[in-house]
Amino acid sequence: MNMADTRASKRTGAIDMTHGGGGRAMAELIRDLFHRHLGNPILAQGNDAALIEVPPGRLVMATDGHVISPLFFPGGDIGSLSVHGTLNDVAMAGARPLYLTAGFILEEGFPLADLERIVISMAHAAREAGVPVITGDTKVVEKGKGDGVFITTTGLGVVPEGVRVCADRAKAGQAILLSGPIGDHGVAIMSKRENLEFETEILSDSAALHGLVAEMIGAVPQIAVLRDPTRGGLAATLNEIARSGNVGMMLDEAAIPLRPDVAAACEMLGLDPLYVANEGKLVCLCEAADADKLIALMRANPLGKDAARIGTVTDDNANLVQMKTGFGGTRVVDWLAGEQLPRIC
Amino acid sequence: MNMADTRASKRTGAIDMTHGGGGRAMAELIRDLFHRHLGNPILAQGNDAALIEVPPGRLVMATDGHVISPLFFPGGDIGSLSVHGTLNDVAMAGARPLYLTAGFILEEGFPLADLERIVISMAHAAREAGVPVITGDTKVVEKGKGDGVFITTTGLGVVPEGVRVCADRAKAGQAILLSGPIGDHGVAIMSKRENLEFETEILSDSAALHGLVAEMIGAVPQIAVLRDPTRGGLAATLNEIARSGNVGMMLDEAAIPLRPDVAAACEMLGLDPLYVANEGKLVCLCEAADADKLIALMRANPLGKDAARIGTVTDDNANLVQMKTGFGGTRVVDWLAGEQLPRIC
Repeated sequence: MNMADTRASKRTGAIDMTHGGGGRAMAELIRDLFHRHLGNPILAQGNDAALIEVPPGRLVMATDGHVISPLFFPGGDIGSLSVHGTLNDVAMAGARPLYLTAGFILEEGFPLADLERIVISMAHAAREAGVPVITGDTKVVEKGKGDGVFITTTGLGVVPEGVRVCADRAKAGQAILLSGPIGDHGVAIMSKRENLEFETEILSDSAALHGLVAEMIGAVPQIAVLRDPTRGGLAATLNEIARSGNVGMMLDEAAIPLRPDVAAACEMLGLDPLYVANEGKLVCLCEAADADKLIALMRANPLGKDAARIGTVTDDNANLVQMKTGFGGTRVVDWLAGEQLPRIC
Repeated sequence: MNMADTRASKRTGAIDMTHGGGGRAMAELIRDLFHRHLGNPILAQGNDAALIEVPPGRLVMATDGHVISPLFFPGGDIGSLSVHGTLNDVAMAGARPLYLTAGFILEEGFPLADLERIVISMAHAAREAGVPVITGDTKVVEKGKGDGVFITTTGLGVVPEGVRVCADRAKAGQAILLSGPIGDHGVAIMSKRENLEFETEILSDSAALHGLVAEMIGAVPQIAVLRDPTRGGLAATLNEIARSGNVGMMLDEAAIPLRPDVAAACEMLGLDPLYVANEGKLVCLCEAADADKLIALMRANPLGKDAARIGTVTDDNANLVQMKTGFGGTRVVDWLAGEQLPRIC
């Protein structure tokens, strides 16, 4: 009788409440899906906590919930995104990511085939990044109380000796670097939602940046600030840094990389690309003298090939982020108050 | 105009989509609610990742999503539970918890006052446990795509030198100890859901067990297995351990602590207390020679005052968990296949 329940859920091919009940159906889901695809010796310990060895040094922890809609989008899905997003948060502290954990909240009725596709994508992203998912958790909520799948990942990383990357180290005179064109992720999602078609499909830039960060830190350990401009886009990220460091910023609009197709899509969608989320870009603040060296190094990496110096940190107790526009004027890049793009990550 | 949006959401007193947008409304929510109540020097770093110092040694990580319904229940709420649940997973690896992270998934329209109550409860639980919440994340989903609030917490802990607590160390002849009566948490939740009234209200046992674990490990570092019988109850936990260690178990029904009111409620609700979730109990497997010492020590701690030796590990390749019943017979305590209590944690 007990086994029949499990077989029934396999027949329907969808998540049911038993998958979150702590019994056999949950154990089978964990074994046949999560362990099968994400498998590694630490995950295989099979306890509710994972035992790990960590090199000496300062550590960082970062956690990120992923509720993106749609779950599958051009250039990625919630599985790969949930790896990239958290690895990037760890990397932006100047750290080398070591381990990931993953908590799944599944909605009753969610197709097992879609879940498997997501877990495979997650496994692929983790393998490519060289960072294993070492423990996890699965919960199930009733149909209409969730939205397919939410994934919260937490990353642990180690900060190299001598590195102190922190937003409060922003100082007047520093150069502001950006690793590549803005807006790709948000526009990819919105295009999919609105069923827009372009000549060439716009792909999310979702990518793990810790390799690029390691190269940058290796060459210039004194980098002051790193931040990935996700929700709220470049504008929100720069305003946050300005406030943390009690500085202002002057950007050069012409220097900010932006793909023509993304610019066109933003116009069509009524979006300002400065506020559109990215998932594979970073902002770096460094001493002006280090800027050229870093730009050259970033451009040699595929994830930074369009890197550019986009502005300078200024002395400004009002913490304004300003931008020289193409028309020769100056505008304030305000901090977005309302919602621009919901559920973008 | 920008500020007006934020003021509007304050006026409605509820979560709106702007609280997840990465802009000013989200920053204000984080500052006025999360940082205000959970505040500590590491959280105050204000980066997307928290920089921490960790003593040398082996570490453990554990992650747990919390989707309990109702959010407020006799003896706790999702805030305190999300602290206790994850701290306990860390403690069951024999580790001393050091840090917590928290990812919130909020539903549009959720009352800010309820969220504040939850965050205050979380802060209280974290303070009481001596483990700070050092970084977090907030996402918002549309009304009808979530259920008030889900909280995924991740814990990091350090394992004392010489300790190796792991389910695969279960061995025939070991004693099986239980820290107190079973079923309180599940029955408290179900009573609330079904609007049952009892003479005295049954409270969840939700509690952080790492203090008790530290005392136990301090006295008997060679403890083999620790596990908290949450989802699936004592039955699921013992079956999992039996399988991990390739052993069987023989329990003594009369020795398993169970409150009379919980027993009565279980009968009324049609539940078997062996399968009902606990959130403040632990199972311990130890050498038979250490059992009395541990029981005495546990009983001296309020969280283990009803501790009992409930059975013995047996040699059994079929990994059966059996129980001597009150009638002099023996029954198999099977692994629950279907769902008993959905969204119990």
